[in-house]
Amino acid sequence: MLGLGTVGSGVINILERNADVISRRAGREIRVTHASARHPERPRSCRVEGMALTTDPFEVVDDPDVAIVAELIGGEEPARELIVRALDNGKHVVTANKALIAQHGNEIFARARANGVTVAFEAAVAGGIPIIKGIREALTGNRVEWLAGIINGTSNYILSEMFHEGREFGDVLAEAQRLGYAEADPSFDIEGTDAAHKLTILASIAFGIPLQYDRVYVEGIDHVTREDVAFAEELGYRIKHLGVAFREEEGYALRVHPTLVPHRHMLASVDGVMNAVMVKGDAVGPTLYYGAGAGAEPTASAVVADMIDVVREFNVEPENRVPYLAFHTDSLSAEPALPIRDVETAYYLRLSARDEPGVLADVARVLGDFGISIEAIIQKQPEAGAELVPVILLTHRIHERHMDAAIERLERLEQVQDRVVRIRVESLE
Amino acid sequence: MLGLGTVGSGVINILERNADVISRRAGREIRVTHASARHPERPRSCRVEGMALTTDPFEVVDDPDVAIVAELIGGEEPARELIVRALDNGKHVVTANKALIAQHGNEIFARARANGVTVAFEAAVAGGIPIIKGIREALTGNRVEWLAGIINGTSNYILSEMFHEGREFGDVLAEAQRLGYAEADPSFDIEGTDAAHKLTILASIAFGIPLQYDRVYVEGIDHVTREDVAFAEELGYRIKHLGVAFREEEGYALRVHPTLVPHRHMLASVDGVMNAVMVKGDAVGPTLYYGAGAGAEPTASAVVADMIDVVREFNVEPENRVPYLAFHTDSLSAEPALPIRDVETAYYLRLSARDEPGVLADVARVLGDFGISIEAIIQKQPEAGAELVPVILLTHRIHERHMDAAIERLERLEQVQDRVVRIRVESLE
Repeated sequence: MLGLGTVGSGVINILERNADVISRRAGREIRVTHASARHPERPRSCRVEGMALTTDPFEVVDDPDVAIVAELIGGEEPARELIVRALDNGKHVVTANKALIAQHGNEIFARARANGVTVAFEAAVAGGIPIIKGIREALTGNRVEWLAGIINGTSNYILSEMFHEGREFGDVLAEAQRLGYAEADPSFDIEGTDAAHKLTILASIAFGIPLQYDRVYVEGIDHVTREDVAFAEELGYRIKHLGVAFREEEGYALRVHPTLVPHRHMLASVDGVMNAVMVKGDAVGPTLYYGAGAGAEPTASAVVADMIDVVREFNVEPENRVPYLAFHTDSLSAEPALPIRDVETAYYLRLSARDEPGVLADVARVLGDFGISIEAIIQKQPEAGAELVPVILLTHRIHERHMDAAIERLERLEQVQDRVVRIRVESLE
Repeated sequence: MLGLGTVGSGVINILERNADVISRRAGREIRVTHASARHPERPRSCRVEGMALTTDPFEVVDDPDVAIVAELIGGEEPARELIVRALDNGKHVVTANKALIAQHGNEIFARARANGVTVAFEAAVAGGIPIIKGIREALTGNRVEWLAGIINGTSNYILSEMFHEGREFGDVLAEAQRLGYAEADPSFDIEGTDAAHKLTILASIAFGIPLQYDRVYVEGIDHVTREDVAFAEELGYRIKHLGVAFREEEGYALRVHPTLVPHRHMLASVDGVMNAVMVKGDAVGPTLYYGAGAGAEPTASAVVADMIDVVREFNVEPENRVPYLAFHTDSLSAEPALPIRDVETAYYLRLSARDEPGVLADVARVLGDFGISIEAIIQKQPEAGAELVPVILLTHRIHERHMDAAIERLERLEQVQDRVVRIRVESLE
């Protein structure tokens, strides 16, 4: 065990508390024999009696008595180096490290393959939800058409509060930080980086494409306003921060952004810090997986399940094991991930316009010029004394490049003030 | 392949249409070489070119070239005999037969074990939803506390229509039969038998107990009225037909019945023919799995996934395989399933009472005498000219035997007419 922090302690507690059911399922005992921690002597929420403790994680990965290395340190280095060394030493690896798998997974899996060992990473995506196993081992008969997930609990908590309590983004974020739901530096969560790591992994195992984190379009929730949440509701939608991967004719669309989802959609009812991923297969249709996406024991639950899987595969020849990325390495597809400008989606637009006759006509004409059809328009009455009124539009599906051009033109209209707000809309049927 | 009906054809179509992604995942091709059907010459919705077709399924299970037998005939005999013969011939078996597994699974798994082969049955529960895999392989670190599922699509469709359209049970059922959603003889679905088969299997793999179909308490939806659906809504609940399995101190509660579920609960938003199962593990917390519970391709999706799993396990020693019922056979627990009278739950009660002062006091006194606390009461105004008014109560949790006694006494009250309607209530948190 590398790292005795939140998740590491959770794993040790589960292995101890549930030792009986675990060995009844796995057919053998799983024991943590060696552990590394920066401050091994520090009091912690798990028992470490009987373990060989060290401050040097390399001691653990080099120990000939260790069969499985659980990397629960997080971050890029030294986690990457430790994993590679463990693999080179012929040890199987279990990790919860999404950033590492998303960015260095291709290299890590090649190394694992060369050494004939396994790397398991269920805990890297959506905490305790068995979404990796679900896609990789249960939808194996399907051509996956798309997947969409609420895969960042902090963002979902903030958007849920904005919806249910009508609060402002900054206000909820500050409270979440005070309560410990959000990190002191929340940028990884609210700017979408964490979700992009997870989406990278999900898209790869769903479509059989290499991990390509740098091709994911990323947008966070920091620009979503209370007004947008309320207008979306009026139109029958909820705003959710989604990771979305579509198989399109010309390639794959990989994106992370706030999204309007119909309010009766299952994903719309996922509130608070919970996660959920919907996967649409051509045979099975839509399926959804829901649960806690973070936290010590939910994440540790996934780590322990991986350990049991690895134990079962000890004596299986590598070519009969479940492939790391669901598809056998030599059969990963080279189809490209599309740049966002070539992706098609529907849009919610909000403009601030002067309250003059003819504004709607001008706006509609600009959109029409770019081939964009309008599904709904709401024009609000101006508040007393206000010169500007919000105009809200829902459009039909269009390539992003046309929407970019249309928005540029809209912003040049004399009656339109400020930037045009755009949020993508998905029906996910 | 035994049986070329709806599911069998679905399997063949998926294997053909998705041959490329399947072999990229499985690392080999999966081919249907032999098939049996009652009328092999009949035109059907799948291609059977190149397969050895026969009317005699025993020819297939006896053929030395067959490695995996897919039993998709359904029903008890000859399905049971065919499976046993296939196992004795050293073949692995994949089946979608819930009735068979629930009622004869213990015998079938013993036979499989003796022959060192696998029986896979993901398609037996909740169609395309990978709920068997989820519980059996992903929640392996958890002590499962309870599970609750919408596992009969027909019942859920009828209850959804009653809720959304305010229609009567019989009315919706007749339409569902006309549209082909419900069988000509719908008793298996609406009386709860089908759900009881599935619950038997889920409870066994969740808790590590033998299959015990005859210990499941079963109630269908045929007595649920439009009024109850509406009163439940007024109280903040939806009525769903659930299979529920709880681990209680004295044993396991296995039951299938209409259930009031809080309207904001994820299970409450599962509408139409869709299925969903929520599983609460002590480490992971609540998780939910949602998708199509029936239909040719969703069910076939699960069959194909099982085939791929079996193929991967060809050369794995039996003791390293995933155990049939999640727990190793020699470690199944002997803890008993509780009779319904010893099960504790909350209740919705509806009485028809004469519109006289003092009725509520009498009802409350009777409940109090049996130690039953009341959470909410609604007493309706009598309709013009009507002598009877409905009185609706929500109670706190109590053992069923006390509720039985209380209801008997309530029905003897002079002001209470007709039978007292009781529907169980679960918060499922």
